[in-house]
Amino acid sequence: MTPIVGVIGGGQLARMMIPAAVNLGIELRVLAETAGSPAQLAATAVGDYRDLDTVLAFAEGVDVVTFDHEHVPQEILTALVAGGAVVRPGPQALVFAQDKILMRQRLSELGLPVPDWARVRHADDLQRFLDAHGGRAVLKTARGGYDGKGVRIVSAVREAEDWLAGTAELLVEELVEFQRELAQLVARRPAGEIAAWPVVESIQRAGVCAEVIAPAPISAGKLADVASDIAHTIAEQLDVTGVLAVELFETTDERLLINELAMRPHNTGHWSIDGSTTGQFEQHLRAVLDLPLGATGCRDRWSVMVNVLGGPIGDTLASRYPLVLEHQPTVKVHNYAKKSRAGRKVGHVTAGGDDLDQVVWQARSAADALTAVEDTSELGLENLGRENLNGEELADD
Amino acid sequence: MTPIVGVIGGGQLARMMIPAAVNLGIELRVLAETAGSPAQLAATAVGDYRDLDTVLAFAEGVDVVTFDHEHVPQEILTALVAGGAVVRPGPQALVFAQDKILMRQRLSELGLPVPDWARVRHADDLQRFLDAHGGRAVLKTARGGYDGKGVRIVSAVREAEDWLAGTAELLVEELVEFQRELAQLVARRPAGEIAAWPVVESIQRAGVCAEVIAPAPISAGKLADVASDIAHTIAEQLDVTGVLAVELFETTDERLLINELAMRPHNTGHWSIDGSTTGQFEQHLRAVLDLPLGATGCRDRWSVMVNVLGGPIGDTLASRYPLVLEHQPTVKVHNYAKKSRAGRKVGHVTAGGDDLDQVVWQARSAADALTAVEDTSELGLENLGRENLNGEELADD
Repeated sequence: MTPIVGVIGGGQLARMMIPAAVNLGIELRVLAETAGSPAQLAATAVGDYRDLDTVLAFAEGVDVVTFDHEHVPQEILTALVAGGAVVRPGPQALVFAQDKILMRQRLSELGLPVPDWARVRHADDLQRFLDAHGGRAVLKTARGGYDGKGVRIVSAVREAEDWLAGTAELLVEELVEFQRELAQLVARRPAGEIAAWPVVESIQRAGVCAEVIAPAPISAGKLADVASDIAHTIAEQLDVTGVLAVELFETTDERLLINELAMRPHNTGHWSIDGSTTGQFEQHLRAVLDLPLGATGCRDRWSVMVNVLGGPIGDTLASRYPLVLEHQPTVKVHNYAKKSRAGRKVGHVTAGGDDLDQVVWQARSAADALTAVEDTSELGLENLGRENLNGEELADD
Repeated sequence: MTPIVGVIGGGQLARMMIPAAVNLGIELRVLAETAGSPAQLAATAVGDYRDLDTVLAFAEGVDVVTFDHEHVPQEILTALVAGGAVVRPGPQALVFAQDKILMRQRLSELGLPVPDWARVRHADDLQRFLDAHGGRAVLKTARGGYDGKGVRIVSAVREAEDWLAGTAELLVEELVEFQRELAQLVARRPAGEIAAWPVVESIQRAGVCAEVIAPAPISAGKLADVASDIAHTIAEQLDVTGVLAVELFETTDERLLINELAMRPHNTGHWSIDGSTTGQFEQHLRAVLDLPLGATGCRDRWSVMVNVLGGPIGDTLASRYPLVLEHQPTVKVHNYAKKSRAGRKVGHVTAGGDDLDQVVWQARSAADALTAVEDTSELGLENLGRENLNGEELADD
């Protein structure tokens, strides 16, 4: 029997599952939000993932349901499971990627390293936290944020008045002093097997993942082991199946603190498509089908992934191929076939090799040429300084 | 604008263009022979490639027409071109991959090394050739052969009586004394750029490509240069665009003789998907779109590709994944989603690494387990001896 995987969401993550599914002879069915989605080729349904009937009908006949994003409401997920669908990751795991308060509570209970945090119900809660943390902190909505949305640096209660008056649940976190951000990706299958990729460094700009270096240039291997242990613990204790991404702060005093979780392929794992023996999209499919996981070693000494953001020039990436492909014949280009809008993730490139400086240059050069932006200030992409990079969401992919 | 490539033929070669097209954001449209073809995901039409109206309608709106196989009749191809379609490779090149008599004539004119050969119109032609070549030779139909079909070893005219009485044009070739078979793949774009992969060794069984070792284990680099020069000459002189595969005999006296040509991705290039910086399917798409070609270096010291043939057990390859993927976590599996029939190519696996013996073992082990054949003699796959490996056709892919 051909395995059939249903993916809720038709974005670039679902799109990038297509090559892996074609290679392995897996039938991929995508429930896309709109016609003309990045995953259109595999879309078998277009509809609202918040509509139970739509989702139940989609799940009919698939071996397992998985996700392009974590926005499917819990009541839909639990109804799916109650209806007999195999859902991976399951609702009881996914909730921790959906709700930052539940996530912080659970990770704290497990004794895992997280920033100081508190739930914010009233202005008083926020004021108390600010007073105890030097007068500045990161305020977040518990649900629905991504790519810097739903996150705000505040130094006074009045800066949060609109959110406090709203209905969204809020939490506040310390402004972590970090030297850089890391990401540890693992995959776990229901049988319990876990495979970890090397920990990577991720460079964020304006709340969006901009570059990833794999493996993270770490002189000592100690932090790499810590990162892997953290991800293993989370995957097991939260019963995650599929790919789990753990975003980490490496603090100035060389500790790791958990920033965010994602339970699906993640922007910080895109390098693995070309840079690892098993890419994250193949591994995710294997994991959710409870198949043995693939080897996760690096194919090159260094891999560097650079996101391509839509620029003010509205034509397609492909119109820049003649230039880009000629100058960077070793770089692998991934084009999400999305309409270009300023700042929108429309693709990525990956370069690999022995010399990190050279690899970084190749990837940036290709991404810059694809972006076709003369002046990045038009996009608000200038580095906004550490304080603004602190409380970032996981990028939407 | 999104580039649109139309592929005539819905076999595994068209299927394996899908991942490359998805990565590069190229729209792929396939004209498949039947519903449920290996390339079904990209099939936008089902119809007969020998029907002019079907092919003209399919070609409408695509930027370039290319091929999964070389069986489209010349009159269809020339009508396509006359109708304004961009066809790559063009009819004037493709004819040399369609007709072995024209191919042998043209290569001989170019002074390229080919086996002794002659056109056979009458029994006398064959008898004369047999007399001059030790009483045995390879008789071929000029058109339509593949995977050992349309090829016969003969030592007497009576063994060819049915073919001589038929309408097919015939040629006869010397039975080459070869030590092994090599394949040189290159890609050429209309602008003239050519990129060559390393020459590979191909091991054939019963007329079908069984294994490929990349690069070919050649102690001296001399033959590799000769192979590359031959392929460059053919690509330029025959005005080939897209991937060109040149199958070669390495004779016992260390010359290279050209066996067959294919003008499309080829079974002997499947290793490049996982083993080269640019796989042959991506390169073919780049070439036919006249985009700059990608780097063709090896990602591993050795890559070994082993075909998976359908076995007597009729279930799907995927049913063997739990075993195969667990034991060979580094091997890349490619499943063509074809119904399994004994001896039919239903997939391939590729392994890579530093130690050739280890890599060969990994790939064979995975392929054997996927094939699920206890006794290969059931498939007639035992090595039939050199004489039967001589006059083989290019594998259908």
